[in-house]
Amino acid sequence: MTADVVSLSRKTPEPSLEPMLALTASGMNHVNQVILDRMQSEVPLIPALAGHLISGGGKRLRPMLTLAGADLVGYQGTRQHRLAAAVEFIHTATLLHDDVVDGSDLRRGKAAANIIFGNPATVLVGDFLFSRSFELMVEDGSLKVLKILSGASAIIAEGEVDQLTAQRRIDTSEERYLHIIRAKTAALFAAASRIAAVVAECDDERERALDEYGRNLGVAFQLVDDALDYDAEASTMGKDRGDDFREGKMTLPVILAYARGDAEERSFWQAAIGGHRVSDADLDHAIALIDRRNAVADTRARARHFAQRAIDALSIFPHNRAREAMEQAALFAVLRGY
Amino acid sequence: MTADVVSLSRKTPEPSLEPMLALTASGMNHVNQVILDRMQSEVPLIPALAGHLISGGGKRLRPMLTLAGADLVGYQGTRQHRLAAAVEFIHTATLLHDDVVDGSDLRRGKAAANIIFGNPATVLVGDFLFSRSFELMVEDGSLKVLKILSGASAIIAEGEVDQLTAQRRIDTSEERYLHIIRAKTAALFAAASRIAAVVAECDDERERALDEYGRNLGVAFQLVDDALDYDAEASTMGKDRGDDFREGKMTLPVILAYARGDAEERSFWQAAIGGHRVSDADLDHAIALIDRRNAVADTRARARHFAQRAIDALSIFPHNRAREAMEQAALFAVLRGY
Repeated sequence: MTADVVSLSRKTPEPSLEPMLALTASGMNHVNQVILDRMQSEVPLIPALAGHLISGGGKRLRPMLTLAGADLVGYQGTRQHRLAAAVEFIHTATLLHDDVVDGSDLRRGKAAANIIFGNPATVLVGDFLFSRSFELMVEDGSLKVLKILSGASAIIAEGEVDQLTAQRRIDTSEERYLHIIRAKTAALFAAASRIAAVVAECDDERERALDEYGRNLGVAFQLVDDALDYDAEASTMGKDRGDDFREGKMTLPVILAYARGDAEERSFWQAAIGGHRVSDADLDHAIALIDRRNAVADTRARARHFAQRAIDALSIFPHNRAREAMEQAALFAVLRGY
Repeated sequence: MTADVVSLSRKTPEPSLEPMLALTASGMNHVNQVILDRMQSEVPLIPALAGHLISGGGKRLRPMLTLAGADLVGYQGTRQHRLAAAVEFIHTATLLHDDVVDGSDLRRGKAAANIIFGNPATVLVGDFLFSRSFELMVEDGSLKVLKILSGASAIIAEGEVDQLTAQRRIDTSEERYLHIIRAKTAALFAAASRIAAVVAECDDERERALDEYGRNLGVAFQLVDDALDYDAEASTMGKDRGDDFREGKMTLPVILAYARGDAEERSFWQAAIGGHRVSDADLDHAIALIDRRNAVADTRARARHFAQRAIDALSIFPHNRAREAMEQAALFAVLRGY
């Protein structure tokens, strides 16, 4: 076994999302077809607005997890296509609502839907996609899948509200932060992976393993996302650098820099997170402080921990192309932006 | 049969919601308990915000329809309680999102949730309640109920987006308006009634009859709601008189007054719906024009038509206390505000 263990300390030549993309390419064609078909409506504004985001070049990582998971456990049917589309609709709905909640200007490098179409339409099309997602699940007909995804949806909303409550609160702990990202991000990653085991009628152990893979991957993914908002060296992500800073979001880079900072640094963070230091110069200063305290690097180190746990969760499955792709995806998640 | 037909032309002494309230009083205690239990969350802002609206004195007409329908068809179980709570959660979620979409100041005579808690929390708590509603349906376990309510939710969202598209468009027809209110309001009334037949495992004819009852009642209800916004004589409804006017919503009173108006009146309506005449004096003028063209009275007359259709849809059911209460509720819907 030992020789087979994939570890981050192993010299893997540039981990990449390529194996995952190759594994799921054919399945994602089906998923994309379902997405395009089911975002249609007799009300033209709905496909116009939904299409703006959906065709806006997202990675569609979550539906890929459902497809890869189905492949991993040797599922031979086609139910994963519709369910993966349902997962992506939930994700799209939350993105639309997030953009309204955060007042975002950019999403995936383009003007956010709320900027082009306004908040009202963006909220309502989010609701439409969310309803559509449940319609897709009902068509699939598994109450167990419905339970997993409706539960995940409620937890996502709780996590988002919790994040709102923590906003501009400098006293937010790493523990609280992890609790929030487990809910707002990792719950859907977990559900997307888990439902693959459900359609394949796997035993509980495999179902739990896929859940754990997705959950840990989701935490790693969000940690890196939050690191990138303060990473001067990272390539742009298509969102405004410094959004988290200006909104006073307590993400791990800030939590670490604040905890490790001296009195002067702490005083800066209190003012900044409180909303009194939001200029470009303040952002530059924040990035410098975060760099001084090694907070981006250590946020990535935390992400590595969760990615490794995701990889280890797969250890009960046989080595195959799907497992390799899922392991690589976890490694890639940590290195994003480099 | 003829002697038994309930008709609006019959001299019914003051139709009232009382029989419906009495019929469902005990069941609504159970429903309210489910609502209170399931709006809880470890994130305190969620029950605080949800509770502001939920305890704000709504009539809870939609869950009552589920209970009354179950009674009408002689259902003996308890599944209607959880499902009625799910219906009310969908309704509450749409109210929260509507208040954000419309920028409302008042709801049920109190400050709207978005005014007290802000738009972000209001959007997200709506999402939470919507997810919770699906969790309740999943616990019930009927895919048929899930199909009806997820379908209704998608149609509601479509109707809301459609209404947004029609806003400030003076050329909106009565046909288009009816299409919008069938979606945004009547779809949930129809689903709330229909699922009573599903839990009772009624035949298709009864299921369709309950659907039709709810659908027509919902149209009547919305017509009267829209009439009240321009009815100088009506008692207040706890929302700001003239909201529809200021938002440039094309409701039936305006559609009729515009269609029947002379050149000068039409020119006023074009400016007003276009957003260029929104003062209190303009609202007074609008109410005077609507009165001159009999548009509130005729909107109520349209509502009477749909209420009568709702009542006639019940004709296949035996006369009992539930049918009487449902008929009275339809009559009451038309006379609301007098």
